[in-house]
Amino acid sequence: MTVREILETHPHPAGGDLDARVRCIEACSECGITCTSCSDADLAESDVQEMVRCIRLCLDCADVCDTTRRVVTRQTEADVGVVRAALEACIVACRGSREECERHADHHEHCRICAEVCGRCEQACADLLASIG
Amino acid sequence: MTVREILETHPHPAGGDLDARVRCIEACSECGITCTSCSDADLAESDVQEMVRCIRLCLDCADVCDTTRRVVTRQTEADVGVVRAALEACIVACRGSREECERHADHHEHCRICAEVCGRCEQACADLLASIG
Amino acid sequence: MTVREILETHPHPAGGDLDARVRCIEACSECGITCTSCSDADLAESDVQEMVRCIRLCLDCADVCDTTRRVVTRQTEADVGVVRAALEACIVACRGSREECERHADHHEHCRICAEVCGRCEQACADLLASIG
Amino acid sequence: MTVREILETHPHPAGGDLDARVRCIEACSECGITCTSCSDADLAESDVQEMVRCIRLCLDCADVCDTTRRVVTRQTEADVGVVRAALEACIVACRGSREECERHADHHEHCRICAEVCGRCEQACADLLASIG
Repeated sequence: MTVREILETHPHPAGGDLDARVRCIEACSECGITCTSCSDADLAESDVQEMVRCIRLCLDCADVCDTTRRVVTRQTEADVGVVRAALEACIVACRGSREECERHADHHEHCRICAEVCGRCEQACADLLASIG
Repeated sequence: MTVREILETHPHPAGGDLDARVRCIEACSECGITCTSCSDADLAESDVQEMVRCIRLCLDCADVCDTTRRVVTRQTEADVGVVRAALEACIVACRGSREECERHADHHEHCRICAEVCGRCEQACADLLASIG
Repeated sequence: MTVREILETHPHPAGGDLDARVRCIEACSECGITCTSCSDADLAESDVQEMVRCIRLCLDCADVCDTTRRVVTRQTEADVGVVRAALEACIVACRGSREECERHADHHEHCRICAEVCGRCEQACADLLASIG
Repeated sequence: MTVREILETHPHPAGGDLDARVRCIEACSECGITCTSCSDADLAESDVQEMVRCIRLCLDCADVCDTTRRVVTRQTEADVGVVRAALEACIVACRGSREECERHADHHEHCRICAEVCGRCEQACADLLASIG
């Protein structure tokens, strides 16, 4: 199964750029997993006291990515304003998490990876946002 | 337990208007439950075909309210941009759900209640947004 | 709006003990908020290193409570096996979080409150489980 | 990024079968997306009245899969009882959704795919459950 395959079985697929939608769903899914995993790895680090802001922002980002993924996956009777607002919130949450993870990227490999994944998700949300006008 | 009590036990409570924060958490919680329940009641109605848009918008609204409640409940190392973006998305999602529920309020009591609850949540999010600048 | 009011507007309310269902939804909702808040307060404590297990179990418990609340709120075409499995998972998650919070209850007020709320949620889930057979 | 890569960056990776954990996280993620998409496609079908049970069970399954994915992704201070209870709930939710989707697999392609994905997720959860004893 691919995300594209399941979206294409919808009786009335959403208009707009299907590629951008697929990439956004995949990116939100990857980012939800990665932020859950990064905040969890932070908790187990010996310098957890220095990772508190990273944990908090990754928890927010995981929640926002999971919700945005659901909103974007639904194609029936979408309200473009709601979709846009979810994407905008996701871009801000990913940016917050990415910027904090970048500060720890040289000493925590999970932060280096998480920063990259958050950056890709920001971009995928921005691309879908641009395509829906 | 009240929401206020649990928030006040935080070692460094978030600044800003605590009353507005408490009301926002309570309103998002109530709206998450109500939108889950309204979409579920819609599904069981004999005119479910006419309720499809209502179901979809209530599913989105429940997801966005649950996430916004979590972001606003967290007081440690908040990023004001992320909090603001979540509140803005929640206002839009509640408005979408409220406006659709209002169209069915005279023949479905769950829609009448849901429209009211969504309206209160919009207001509570807007009040917290105003208080955090 | 009360949880009872919104449940009663369903065109075909679920059978079983409505009081037990209402108390379970309210308890899961309260416990989802409290566990989110307790894990967040733990993060801000100066002894965060000692609170890592508490944070982790409260994160799990918040996720399980939020999902169980949704499953129990839905009254349309419920599968009793799914409802039962969700309630059983919630009882275990609440117990794990309660037992860990009890260990910190004398020095962290949020843990004392959270242990109480988790205990109430365990009981409310067990009561609903008993009522659905 | 792969799920395996991010899990391996944890300072103290969970014991047990890493392959089984990775497959479970990937399967829960795929199933959360597919059940969200299938319930949404059901809503847009002309025979939506016949799809009500499918929508409800897919909504439950999406919620349970998303929560189970988070619990299994976290490797810090896991409580084996909580992990086991989440996996057991996920197996039951996937089975419920799979059995209902199988009934519609010949006339709705999204149900055919969703039944397959739910079946894979049942198996992946059962495999991880077996490996953690």
